[in-house]
Amino acid sequence: MSGVLVSAGELEQFVIEVLTGAGVPGDDAATTARLLVAADARGVSTHGVIRLIPYHQRLVGGVVRPDPTLATIADSGGFVLLDGDDGLGQVSGTRAAALASDRARQQGIAAVGVRNSHHIGMLGLYVEQIARAGQIGVVMSNTAPLMAPTGSAERILGNNPLAIGVPRAAGGDPVVVDLALSPTSFGKVQEYARRGEPLPPGQVIDVDGNWITDAQVATKTGTMVPIAGHKGYGLALAVELLAGALTGSGTLDRVSSLFREPMLPMAAGHLTIVIDPDAATGDAAAFLAAVERVCEVILAAQPLPNVDGILLPGMPEQRSRERAEAVGILLAENVVAELTRFAETAGVALPSMEPA
Amino acid sequence: MSGVLVSAGELEQFVIEVLTGAGVPGDDAATTARLLVAADARGVSTHGVIRLIPYHQRLVGGVVRPDPTLATIADSGGFVLLDGDDGLGQVSGTRAAALASDRARQQGIAAVGVRNSHHIGMLGLYVEQIARAGQIGVVMSNTAPLMAPTGSAERILGNNPLAIGVPRAAGGDPVVVDLALSPTSFGKVQEYARRGEPLPPGQVIDVDGNWITDAQVATKTGTMVPIAGHKGYGLALAVELLAGALTGSGTLDRVSSLFREPMLPMAAGHLTIVIDPDAATGDAAAFLAAVERVCEVILAAQPLPNVDGILLPGMPEQRSRERAEAVGILLAENVVAELTRFAETAGVALPSMEPA
Repeated sequence: MSGVLVSAGELEQFVIEVLTGAGVPGDDAATTARLLVAADARGVSTHGVIRLIPYHQRLVGGVVRPDPTLATIADSGGFVLLDGDDGLGQVSGTRAAALASDRARQQGIAAVGVRNSHHIGMLGLYVEQIARAGQIGVVMSNTAPLMAPTGSAERILGNNPLAIGVPRAAGGDPVVVDLALSPTSFGKVQEYARRGEPLPPGQVIDVDGNWITDAQVATKTGTMVPIAGHKGYGLALAVELLAGALTGSGTLDRVSSLFREPMLPMAAGHLTIVIDPDAATGDAAAFLAAVERVCEVILAAQPLPNVDGILLPGMPEQRSRERAEAVGILLAENVVAELTRFAETAGVALPSMEPA
Repeated sequence: MSGVLVSAGELEQFVIEVLTGAGVPGDDAATTARLLVAADARGVSTHGVIRLIPYHQRLVGGVVRPDPTLATIADSGGFVLLDGDDGLGQVSGTRAAALASDRARQQGIAAVGVRNSHHIGMLGLYVEQIARAGQIGVVMSNTAPLMAPTGSAERILGNNPLAIGVPRAAGGDPVVVDLALSPTSFGKVQEYARRGEPLPPGQVIDVDGNWITDAQVATKTGTMVPIAGHKGYGLALAVELLAGALTGSGTLDRVSSLFREPMLPMAAGHLTIVIDPDAATGDAAAFLAAVERVCEVILAAQPLPNVDGILLPGMPEQRSRERAEAVGILLAENVVAELTRFAETAGVALPSMEPA
């Protein structure tokens, strides 16, 4: 991929300057910057620094509150419900993970729900951090409608991402499962349209339920299907009910789109569940040994012809992170172009970049 | 479907007689009978009374313990770990659901893991019962290897089912999402083989990763793929680590097959998580109202041409249950033939049946 390389620290500093300039307190800006840059480091640019642009638009438009008060709505010991107060999702998401982690250490399992939140970014980062601390993390969020329930072509359900992180022994990179319940992201459909390439079937349908292969048409009038038919529909609905209805957040059409509806509060909800293997089983070492055996058996599986080797979920992102730590964060040319325009408008200098 | 109708009560009585004859205490036999017949009532015959045959084989073979002691391995308040002692999965699964439900009422969320368990049957029944009591239930189990991790054709991972139940207001049938992480069940592939029909592509691969459409070959040498490629692989691995590794149960090849390995302890694990909406949020009524709105919006979605109407997960099974309550349990002819042979061997009389 052609693009530029930039220092992670300098890129974080850029994000912090933009956010603090919009009234976000320094600690919250640093948390958000760390998560956005960490997504770019893992090669997940759709959840990287490029997202600063709609966040900033919403902050200056008064739709995202720069300095939210995260009130506790309910606390039953194992389950805490917070109000995100329309602040940045990274702030409430990080608070939720830390709180669930603490409570799980006491009683084996705990959960924190957040209502009235915003785009939470790359879910895998939260569960990766939980898993690096030796715990199992599950995070889910509902999103603006993109998908149809099975049997319909109406955009009714979000593609409602879900991530699960499991620790590895001896500081190994965690297993991180991180997926949206659509076959691909809306951002990737937009990429096909931008490049003028046809969209593969199996992703977006028209009003009659036929596959749309014209990516331009797909972004405008198409509806995504859930993964695996009614199975993905069921999982997406479950996330809607757990992250949205249970937390008292918006659901379905009451969750607004980061891109299409910049002037509406997002009203998304998150649910974070943490299991502490030591508290839960009394023997974290035995658990970690069992995880290692599973991972070793899978990694030793015979690859198909033309497959280099078997990967565990999260490995591609960790390899990308290692490269980024060695040489810097890789940003694609279109990302740099967008950030350059944005930086000028925001009046904040972009960090120095060198060709990749 | 041609078949016979039988009274649910009489069919349960038949199961109870068989199980108590093999040394299972009356209460545990009744629990197991209720769950097997409830699966048949919901039209899920692959998890119905037909499963009594391998259960009985394993009980008389000394592989399943008829009278297990469910010892508590760890109890941290929110998380309880039980040893299933190689007893029937229905017994430990029912105990786990009741215990998680009680604990969740106190602290919002709770989980019970079971190690050394057996086939747990239709997962949706456990979460349906939890949801009928007003709580959110999640149950998962690992199974004997059937599927390949992405990039391989080796049978390494189970298809590791997962169920989520969410209560509806005013005693409505719960939303029940119940799915295995393979596109279809191994039992359905066997059905194709039995009927001499070709297997649709997208389900079972050969050693080179090509789709097998000969169902006979598929059952013998094929390997199932996970749903949705690496997404299903990730979810199946997560269930393996949560239901298997976390509970200290068998994982991967150390979980034996109900059918192919009748003389090995199954060593499967389960994890049951319950969230109590009232304790978690302090406002169960608001949660139920939010669930209702989501369900209403989805049910009102415009159906595609040739689609009768949009369904919520669990609705087909509840319609089947209503029919069964009106006219009796429908058993297919091949199920009746197998049960008839089995009943003669076991020396227990089958209930009276009438043509459907």
